[in-house]
Amino acid sequence: MIEDKNQQRTPLSALGEFGLIDHLTTNFKINHKSTIKGIGDDAAVLSHKDKNIVVTTDLLVEGVHFDLSYMPLKHLGYKAVVVNLSDVYAMNANATQITVSIAVSNRFPLEALEELYAGIKTAASIYNIDVVGGDTTSSTSGLLISITAIGEVNKDDVVYRNGAKPNDLLVVTGDLGGAYLGLQVLEREKEVFKVNPNSQPDLEMYTYIIERQLKPEARKDIIKLLKDLNVKPTSMIDISDGLSSEIIHLCKQSEVGCDLYENKIPLDPQVISTCEEFDIDSTTVALNGGEDYELLMTIAQEDFPKIKANPNLTVIGYITEASSGMHLVTRADTKIPIKAQGWNALNDQE
Amino acid sequence: MIEDKNQQRTPLSALGEFGLIDHLTTNFKINHKSTIKGIGDDAAVLSHKDKNIVVTTDLLVEGVHFDLSYMPLKHLGYKAVVVNLSDVYAMNANATQITVSIAVSNRFPLEALEELYAGIKTAASIYNIDVVGGDTTSSTSGLLISITAIGEVNKDDVVYRNGAKPNDLLVVTGDLGGAYLGLQVLEREKEVFKVNPNSQPDLEMYTYIIERQLKPEARKDIIKLLKDLNVKPTSMIDISDGLSSEIIHLCKQSEVGCDLYENKIPLDPQVISTCEEFDIDSTTVALNGGEDYELLMTIAQEDFPKIKANPNLTVIGYITEASSGMHLVTRADTKIPIKAQGWNALNDQE
Repeated sequence: MIEDKNQQRTPLSALGEFGLIDHLTTNFKINHKSTIKGIGDDAAVLSHKDKNIVVTTDLLVEGVHFDLSYMPLKHLGYKAVVVNLSDVYAMNANATQITVSIAVSNRFPLEALEELYAGIKTAASIYNIDVVGGDTTSSTSGLLISITAIGEVNKDDVVYRNGAKPNDLLVVTGDLGGAYLGLQVLEREKEVFKVNPNSQPDLEMYTYIIERQLKPEARKDIIKLLKDLNVKPTSMIDISDGLSSEIIHLCKQSEVGCDLYENKIPLDPQVISTCEEFDIDSTTVALNGGEDYELLMTIAQEDFPKIKANPNLTVIGYITEASSGMHLVTRADTKIPIKAQGWNALNDQE
Repeated sequence: MIEDKNQQRTPLSALGEFGLIDHLTTNFKINHKSTIKGIGDDAAVLSHKDKNIVVTTDLLVEGVHFDLSYMPLKHLGYKAVVVNLSDVYAMNANATQITVSIAVSNRFPLEALEELYAGIKTAASIYNIDVVGGDTTSSTSGLLISITAIGEVNKDDVVYRNGAKPNDLLVVTGDLGGAYLGLQVLEREKEVFKVNPNSQPDLEMYTYIIERQLKPEARKDIIKLLKDLNVKPTSMIDISDGLSSEIIHLCKQSEVGCDLYENKIPLDPQVISTCEEFDIDSTTVALNGGEDYELLMTIAQEDFPKIKANPNLTVIGYITEASSGMHLVTRADTKIPIKAQGWNALNDQE
């Protein structure tokens, strides 16, 4: 759907590998003092003093992580960056640089890659990060994007997954389940489109959840907010695979248990109404949906007064001793063990 | 050929994504003080003082960069690391950490990935680098490896591609053309094998060039040697795409020209004899073959006494004014313009 809109189709072979990198990254500017050398040498050169730097990397594969029939390439470029930055923020760090590598089959014309890089550039600009390197190569099938993100953080401010303590509060940012439901709506429209290519879908009532899927944001604002509130979480992780999966990571690494309250899980009204329409349980969607890119953290009890009035932060439970296990406390006040049913990249495929 | 040898075949879906990363990286040790946190959180955490850090990334795609019918997975893992480290050394930096991401189709059993990671681990151990992160996901076809390497270097020691000056000496490490010829031998054996699967190839006379292709080494030793000799190159680049392509990069970025002497290009005797056998010109192979992972550098004239006795370093020409252009001076003493005919990843593929 996206590619067909391109009037111009310049074959990639017209540029060659070196020409392609140069072409796609021409207008990428350097903003950080710590970026001494960006694209154009064997490696980027960064400088850091008195700080720790954090590094994270993610692969996005066509047909596994995205479907170009409803994911515009510009959004894909944007999302690929955001997904990585989310991991940097989950360390309580400030993202500063990324490298972007792509493998692409020759069925993509140059204009398609330009769209992709336009999205990457927009994300770099909005999140204020420098694009400092990368690699472009051909693939035998489809598109693959590999991004590595680098950030910096004062030595005392790093937050790991393993610092949660019994009685800490379990806190989540934003609301959950939207990205997964947005995907369900898009998948449904794709099926309708297959049967009737002239259908004009009215997606107005799904705007929020579709945006959560196609153009998610990373919670850079929360890192600043925590600093402003003078709160250092005891542990933190980003929610990419679903709340239950991330809670399990956090509790296992911290060697603690938790009680998660079903009625506290933040849901957008559009998530609730769409769950009703699709006849899916909204708690299941929030627990297992994934791709929300919110932050899950634990906060010491004494910090509660600092966060309680904040609309961005919702207390959804508390940490217990490991021996108590990890439980969901349902609306009916029964306790169910939390299990990871998150989206599993390796099971879904042939 | 490689996969068939595996008696055990554990489907990847038996582990799931999280289990797979844990399983593959269990025995990866941390050796560097600068590695504060490796695998296991949203991002790795590194610390650096008074130094610049360098970052480089490379993608290797099955069917484009490697062919598993003659590339054992262990060697592939090793080579994927080495290729990235080579870029770090080309900055005159010391490689310290890598992240490794792979996309893999379910036709690969767990044992195949274990082989791959065994090679990665061997390289990490030999080059003394910490594996600090990564991502594993499924692909719809084949295997793809994305590695990001990080290194550190004293602020005054960084060497870029753009520092070459007229009259500087053009110097290359090791010898050239071997990796390309090794590939030709392996391709030929593959064709023979197709016709007669019982053939037992005798590759003894090609040991060196096959090793250059299957198990290349990065020139970490040269970074130490240059320090010991008290030589800081004015510019440096690693030779991944062929000598002519790298010379052009270096001259263009430095805004200079050069005279390269054909009779000075270092060739191994096995390269010469195999070129005769295949009826290919050895200079063409050295100029355009690629994948040698040697270092090309320029050195000020006054440093010549320091390097002249060293068997690892060969002077192959000198830098001229940009207006003179880039030329190969042939054995017949004629000047031919240097053109990039290096292996081009985007032209070769459909």
